[in-house]
Amino acid sequence: MSDNSNSTTKPLASVSATFADRHIGPRAADTERMLAAIGAPSVDKLIDTAVPTQIRLDRALNLPPALSEAGSLQALRALASQNVVKRSMIGMGYYDTITPGVIKRNVLESPAWYTAYTPYQPEISQGRLEALLNFQTMICDLTGLAIAGASLLDEGTAAAEAMTLTMRAAKKKTETPTLLVDRDVFPQTLAVVQTRARALGLRVVVIDTTGDLPQAAFEESVDTADVFGVLTQYPSTGAVRDLTGLIEATHQIGALAIVAADLLSLCLLKSPGEMGADVVVGSAQRFGVPMGYGGPHAGFMSVREGLQRTMPGRLVGVSVDSAGAPAYRLALQTREQHIRREKATSNICTAQVLLAVMASMYAVYHGPAGLTAIAERVGAHAAALAAGLRAADVEVVADSFFDTVTARVPGAARAIVDKACADGVNLRYVDEDTIAISCDETTSDDDLRVVLAAFGASSLPAADADTIPAELRRTGEFLTHPTFSAYHSETAMLRYLRRLSDKDYALDRGMIPLGSCTMKLNATAEMEAITWPEFAGLHPFAPVDQTAGYQQLFADLEGWLAEVTGYDAVSLQPNAGSQGEFAGLLAISKYHEANGDGARVVCLIPSSAHGTNAASAVMAGMKVVVVACDDNGNIDTADLAAKIEAHKDDLAAMMITYPSTHGVYEETITEVCAMVHDAGGQVYVDGANLNALVGLAQPGKFGSDVSHLNLHKTFCIPHGGGGPGVGPIGVRAHLAPYLPNHPLVAEAGPATGPGPVSAAPWGSAGILPISWAYVRMMGADGLSDATVAAIVAANYIAARLREHYPVLYAGPSGLVAHECILDIRPLTKSSGVTVDDVAKRLVDYGFHAPTMSFPVAGTLMVEPTESEDLGELDRFIDAMIAIREEADRVESGEWDKADNPLVNAPHTALSLAGDWPHPYSREEAVFPTAATRQSKYFAPVGRIDGAYGDRNLVCSCPPPEAFED
Amino acid sequence: MSDNSNSTTKPLASVSATFADRHIGPRAADTERMLAAIGAPSVDKLIDTAVPTQIRLDRALNLPPALSEAGSLQALRALASQNVVKRSMIGMGYYDTITPGVIKRNVLESPAWYTAYTPYQPEISQGRLEALLNFQTMICDLTGLAIAGASLLDEGTAAAEAMTLTMRAAKKKTETPTLLVDRDVFPQTLAVVQTRARALGLRVVVIDTTGDLPQAAFEESVDTADVFGVLTQYPSTGAVRDLTGLIEATHQIGALAIVAADLLSLCLLKSPGEMGADVVVGSAQRFGVPMGYGGPHAGFMSVREGLQRTMPGRLVGVSVDSAGAPAYRLALQTREQHIRREKATSNICTAQVLLAVMASMYAVYHGPAGLTAIAERVGAHAAALAAGLRAADVEVVADSFFDTVTARVPGAARAIVDKACADGVNLRYVDEDTIAISCDETTSDDDLRVVLAAFGASSLPAADADTIPAELRRTGEFLTHPTFSAYHSETAMLRYLRRLSDKDYALDRGMIPLGSCTMKLNATAEMEAITWPEFAGLHPFAPVDQTAGYQQLFADLEGWLAEVTGYDAVSLQPNAGSQGEFAGLLAISKYHEANGDGARVVCLIPSSAHGTNAASAVMAGMKVVVVACDDNGNIDTADLAAKIEAHKDDLAAMMITYPSTHGVYEETITEVCAMVHDAGGQVYVDGANLNALVGLAQPGKFGSDVSHLNLHKTFCIPHGGGGPGVGPIGVRAHLAPYLPNHPLVAEAGPATGPGPVSAAPWGSAGILPISWAYVRMMGADGLSDATVAAIVAANYIAARLREHYPVLYAGPSGLVAHECILDIRPLTKSSGVTVDDVAKRLVDYGFHAPTMSFPVAGTLMVEPTESEDLGELDRFIDAMIAIREEADRVESGEWDKADNPLVNAPHTALSLAGDWPHPYSREEAVFPTAATRQSKYFAPVGRIDGAYGDRNLVCSCPPPEAFED
Repeated sequence: MSDNSNSTTKPLASVSATFADRHIGPRAADTERMLAAIGAPSVDKLIDTAVPTQIRLDRALNLPPALSEAGSLQALRALASQNVVKRSMIGMGYYDTITPGVIKRNVLESPAWYTAYTPYQPEISQGRLEALLNFQTMICDLTGLAIAGASLLDEGTAAAEAMTLTMRAAKKKTETPTLLVDRDVFPQTLAVVQTRARALGLRVVVIDTTGDLPQAAFEESVDTADVFGVLTQYPSTGAVRDLTGLIEATHQIGALAIVAADLLSLCLLKSPGEMGADVVVGSAQRFGVPMGYGGPHAGFMSVREGLQRTMPGRLVGVSVDSAGAPAYRLALQTREQHIRREKATSNICTAQVLLAVMASMYAVYHGPAGLTAIAERVGAHAAALAAGLRAADVEVVADSFFDTVTARVPGAARAIVDKACADGVNLRYVDEDTIAISCDETTSDDDLRVVLAAFGASSLPAADADTIPAELRRTGEFLTHPTFSAYHSETAMLRYLRRLSDKDYALDRGMIPLGSCTMKLNATAEMEAITWPEFAGLHPFAPVDQTAGYQQLFADLEGWLAEVTGYDAVSLQPNAGSQGEFAGLLAISKYHEANGDGARVVCLIPSSAHGTNAASAVMAGMKVVVVACDDNGNIDTADLAAKIEAHKDDLAAMMITYPSTHGVYEETITEVCAMVHDAGGQVYVDGANLNALVGLAQPGKFGSDVSHLNLHKTFCIPHGGGGPGVGPIGVRAHLAPYLPNHPLVAEAGPATGPGPVSAAPWGSAGILPISWAYVRMMGADGLSDATVAAIVAANYIAARLREHYPVLYAGPSGLVAHECILDIRPLTKSSGVTVDDVAKRLVDYGFHAPTMSFPVAGTLMVEPTESEDLGELDRFIDAMIAIREEADRVESGEWDKADNPLVNAPHTALSLAGDWPHPYSREEAVFPTAATRQSKYFAPVGRIDGAYGDRNLVCSCPPPEAFED
Repeated sequence: MSDNSNSTTKPLASVSATFADRHIGPRAADTERMLAAIGAPSVDKLIDTAVPTQIRLDRALNLPPALSEAGSLQALRALASQNVVKRSMIGMGYYDTITPGVIKRNVLESPAWYTAYTPYQPEISQGRLEALLNFQTMICDLTGLAIAGASLLDEGTAAAEAMTLTMRAAKKKTETPTLLVDRDVFPQTLAVVQTRARALGLRVVVIDTTGDLPQAAFEESVDTADVFGVLTQYPSTGAVRDLTGLIEATHQIGALAIVAADLLSLCLLKSPGEMGADVVVGSAQRFGVPMGYGGPHAGFMSVREGLQRTMPGRLVGVSVDSAGAPAYRLALQTREQHIRREKATSNICTAQVLLAVMASMYAVYHGPAGLTAIAERVGAHAAALAAGLRAADVEVVADSFFDTVTARVPGAARAIVDKACADGVNLRYVDEDTIAISCDETTSDDDLRVVLAAFGASSLPAADADTIPAELRRTGEFLTHPTFSAYHSETAMLRYLRRLSDKDYALDRGMIPLGSCTMKLNATAEMEAITWPEFAGLHPFAPVDQTAGYQQLFADLEGWLAEVTGYDAVSLQPNAGSQGEFAGLLAISKYHEANGDGARVVCLIPSSAHGTNAASAVMAGMKVVVVACDDNGNIDTADLAAKIEAHKDDLAAMMITYPSTHGVYEETITEVCAMVHDAGGQVYVDGANLNALVGLAQPGKFGSDVSHLNLHKTFCIPHGGGGPGVGPIGVRAHLAPYLPNHPLVAEAGPATGPGPVSAAPWGSAGILPISWAYVRMMGADGLSDATVAAIVAANYIAARLREHYPVLYAGPSGLVAHECILDIRPLTKSSGVTVDDVAKRLVDYGFHAPTMSFPVAGTLMVEPTESEDLGELDRFIDAMIAIREEADRVESGEWDKADNPLVNAPHTALSLAGDWPHPYSREEAVFPTAATRQSKYFAPVGRIDGAYGDRNLVCSCPPPEAFED
């Protein structure tokens, strides 16, 4: 395929549609109609009016010219070909794995799964909620603990979250709260923990936990009274050991035991839960999720009974729907950061749903026997390798191990690792005397022969010794739920995946107009490259010289994002917006520290801000001070001045979302930035709403010092049903020395950086081709056209709906930015119809609800994005108007306040079949429009009772009998 | 990814599931349960009893050991890497094209589309029927004719079908019916036409049609009274000309005008219909369907009003459903071969649905303006190329052309073609003085520069001349139906594709138990390679030395298929079962001819045979004589003996389906074969039921001389919603010299062959990796295990349903083969419930109906295949039993014969919402089982009135208003 865009014959014959034409929904004539409805004379005039002059960019972005889809794929193939995929035996938490084709094609490559949103509307998310419940069940069974969450970002951040969880749970009164970490914990996990601990003022001490715990602590000058947690690796590099004694000792000193465990090993090993662990963390990567040069993968955490209410991240639970049938939804949401703000215990918003779904389906497909067979085979390969090494008189460190053989080769490690590398296998160079070699599902005898040859060993013996001591062998069954035995043929699996995805509403069905979440097109041409082996197959600690394609892709993307945002440097490491916020604030802290301004710890946050901002500030060791907003939702500059004055000595930063969470370009933005700067503070602009700025304004130029970007919002990485997210940060030059770095890969960040915020050097590298392709195919004009189209669409919705629902905030000209807030409260007051009722009723009309009650309770925030065509926008608007008319019938008393199509929404197909005691017809219930009659999506369950589920917490798969009538 | 299967550690730790474990549905314990229900003590005993001893293979198949899925993909990558993908400018009806990513991923790579069956159950096929209606509308609009079919196999066979159509339509009384073919018709098209004509005794004369038609005929010694048709190419190689005069002259001599047209050119050119053409044929390949080294693509045919009832292939039409709403279905099915048998006008059963859907969606996505822009751009490139050649004093043959520039280079063609090839571009070597160069959608200026350099030309001028004469320019709009303007953004297209596929029932939803159609798993690992550029991107006439990977794949597959069938040689060329039958019978004819037995023209066919057999025999110039079957459905050997005696001098062949179409292993098979052989006849075993033989018996060893195989049945090529099919033939050594060959590619068949039966040398080469992967991953044991599992499953169904529905035929032991016939006639007699009612009612239960009324009217033929797991088999059986119980309630008078859930089936969601005047409940109607309550598929329309549609034939898209209430 050639790149058509550079053709000189272009002037002769116009090329077919550009990618921007495909990405942007409305056609030119549609835009004219929308402008007419808005009352704007032209697009330019609309933008000039909506976007404050003082922030406008007066030039086109300096980006390479747009490539066609075929051209971009060709360019990506060229980059891919520069990556060298060797057999990875590096281990350290990342292993090659076989993604079953049926899962790859029908989950990872299926829009029905990858374009879904976070399951905040549980009635239309039952498919992925069931898959996540399978994930939680799998984690519980394997780790031996009672409760598991629906995935975390990676093993390193999961360990860091476990640190803060155990610190809170241990409730120790001490000035120097201390976490003990075993010396065998993966170095990147340790580093992420240390980054987080430093920010919070926690002490992390690395010890040898194989002996007497108090003695080991004493030797490191640690008072056990300070110790709140002990983190170990299980199995540790090259060794399987019984942790029971250590965990007992941990409990005896009043601390909690955190075990970072390998999921596959747990199919064979006694579980950490059985040994008494309080928290188990790890990664589900090797359950069928490609390494992707570091991510994304599903990290996990499970906890013992009693700790679930302070567990970070999302938790899926079972509740009941309006018909009393079992139904899934997110449990204990009151714990979440957007509700608890500065009281939040974690800033994590995103899970890794798409990857957790894959990993859970891997377990469903293989079942307990299949997983055990894979684990046995991995172990047997490791045993054979160890035997081969010993036969050649190479010292193997441990007798008991699972997949990793650690060899002592005094002074020879580099030469052996290099030899193996030259022969196509990457080993782990631990130090000049030590090499670790990890086997995985894909390891072949030939791989072992290559490894042995590098050690000068010649034969591969049949391994006979059992390398796992009998007392550490798992006893009893696991994954006994029927789901893990019912779908072992590909046909059965295919249908299970289809059945689940059919329950869900994703972008492939219709609009998901979520304010602040920017649910735009995830184009196929963006998605294709991520499953190519050259991008998917690299280990994050593969020698950098094997990753030239990735390095070029990073350099390109960093440069383009810097240009888009106006910053001077970008770090791609943060693998979620939350980690980006943390990294950004960390950079500010480090900067102040370097300037001798270590006392600057106050972070100003407007009351309109997303809760994550405050949670991140706390995580970064800052003190949150809230700035008031005025009646128009804008920052109250008088209050800001007062707060700045009050904190003039300790002001560290102000976090601002721009355009504001109210969907408005605040006119005072440059003034606000100046006020903060004048007081010695730094400005953090939350990039959540960057889709309203790209090509029109650059935060790095209009006053901000640092922003995180959400590549899963503005830059087309799909939401995956609730993750992966990617949250790079851009900074001005003075903050560049404090961007994240990585202890194992010097190229990943500045030497002066604060350490890593994600386990992998470039975070979720494996999905960065998506954003690369987006920018490369859109070009400067395409990107700014998209921004303009998003603004036009939001204003069109506001203009057409204003007479039916008050539009809560707008700029001085009456225009909104890229989203608008519809106020449902007056309607609620007059009719009793709530924002929930409207949201659920939209499902009956074939739509996903907008963002509910954020940033203002009782409202809906609508963000159409540039990708929705006019037909879909009109269908949504017409649905909203029709719902308003239905509410009028409730208000007028025609319909009972307790029995009307709104309060009973969503209506299931099953409900149609039974008695119909309602004052409205079945047809009014489920076929309110011509479009629904043509093509109907039925919510699979009725409205779900969330409170019931929280009162009766069930977070693993219910027995099949629960679904009987 | 490594191949795990060769690991020496396998004995140490069992590998995870083999591919056969994934392909075969039932687990070991399930099989035990099934055997118990059948009453068989063991699998071996069951097979020994069911399969006649005299045909049993007494050894394992000699095939390479099974590879894992990962191993197979690795091996396919190695083959792919041996293919060299150069820029193709060969033309000849095959052009590089850009498959829009959204179509590739969501049609070609989507199980919802590719695992669907032929839309014989229209109520559950509305999505693909709409897509095919779009295809027909597109073909009608572009060709300018009233009626278009739903696709044919390729341009060559479409032309051959047009030949026979025009011969019938011209109704000339002559001994030497003659088709005139313009000398510029593509050589492979001519060759396919000639193969077909020879078999039918038609004369094909190549002439120059640019002058006076009667004069040209006279010069070739043709009496115009003999001429029934004139076939031309439009545009012809390198020239666009007005065909109006020629077509007038054609009509004046009482013949019909057939135009083989290029679809993309028709966006710019006056249509053949406007010029008076009676029939237009061609290929829709360049509308987004990869070349795939020859196929599969959608061939097309459109005809003027009045010819539709003799048009070959399938035709989609609009009718109404039980609620009076518009609904699509196959129109005029009474024309079809399985109904008309030896009176059939064509033997074509398969369309190329999947490819027709892709091509139609390409048009939907680009729309008329987009297609025109692509065509203009192609034309502009050709014009620039011509200008560049002329600037270098190279003679360009024509002034008027579309995409193809023909250059005269006396004596220099080989050197120039070789130079371009060395620089990465394949040109068409016409003869030593002539080169043709075709531009396409992917052509870049750089490509043109390479071509010009090969000619010694140095510069690429901007083309200014219009290469299409004004009077030949298309005037007026086309593709004006709103569908072609509504889905131009990727988001809109994605949702349209999802919406359509959601209307359909395919294997990804549940079982499709179609007797004789073998709807088994189409595994992802089989499907993946077909979209790799190294397989998808080759031109069928690329130099063979660029296709080493394909050649190896062909050699492997031919060898394996020969081993599986017991034949000595295999041809992969036939691109459908129908073409395989034709090719097989042709080989028999040629063999007799070579032996001086040209008088042997009688083909014996049992009365139980599929109608295609008879139609194929007629096509091959044979005379059909029907052999009776006895009451058990078996061949009546006495009648056979009598027929053989009656035709002892002119017996050519006997066609037998084995196991029989009744699903029984006839015990007399070896005897029957011997009888035919003793009389000098050849035995053709129809391979439709090969799934019951693989690994257990070899037709080539138990008495057959030739078979066609259906790779889309037994060897896992998906049905694609009604095509592609692939129908290779296997023959014993004495027939090998008469396998198909190809005039342009010597490697494609024996020099002594009868010519090509498909346009491309290896037919639908692009999908052969699917069957290659299947055999490679199953290995000998896996294949025979699959056969056994299919037999067990069919017998399980027969055993469990026998008491509810009579099982019509069985072997002497009471066992069936791999399918069973359930007799509905007694039920119909007693209750009025018809086979249609049962079939449609199964939809309400969530199943696709079995084969209806074949081979016996009033019955259902059920083939579960090996891929259905026991859970699904049981759900199907339980549904059938429940339906039987429902019929009992009709019989008892509890439910009205005219108003019951069976006669009203299928029930739509819409029907639930309205009044419910029925004597049964809504719940009984649509949620008859627990499984349907858990996950419900609603037919999008009610039962369709086929007769209404045939009376009121509408075969293009109805206006949107038709769907209003």
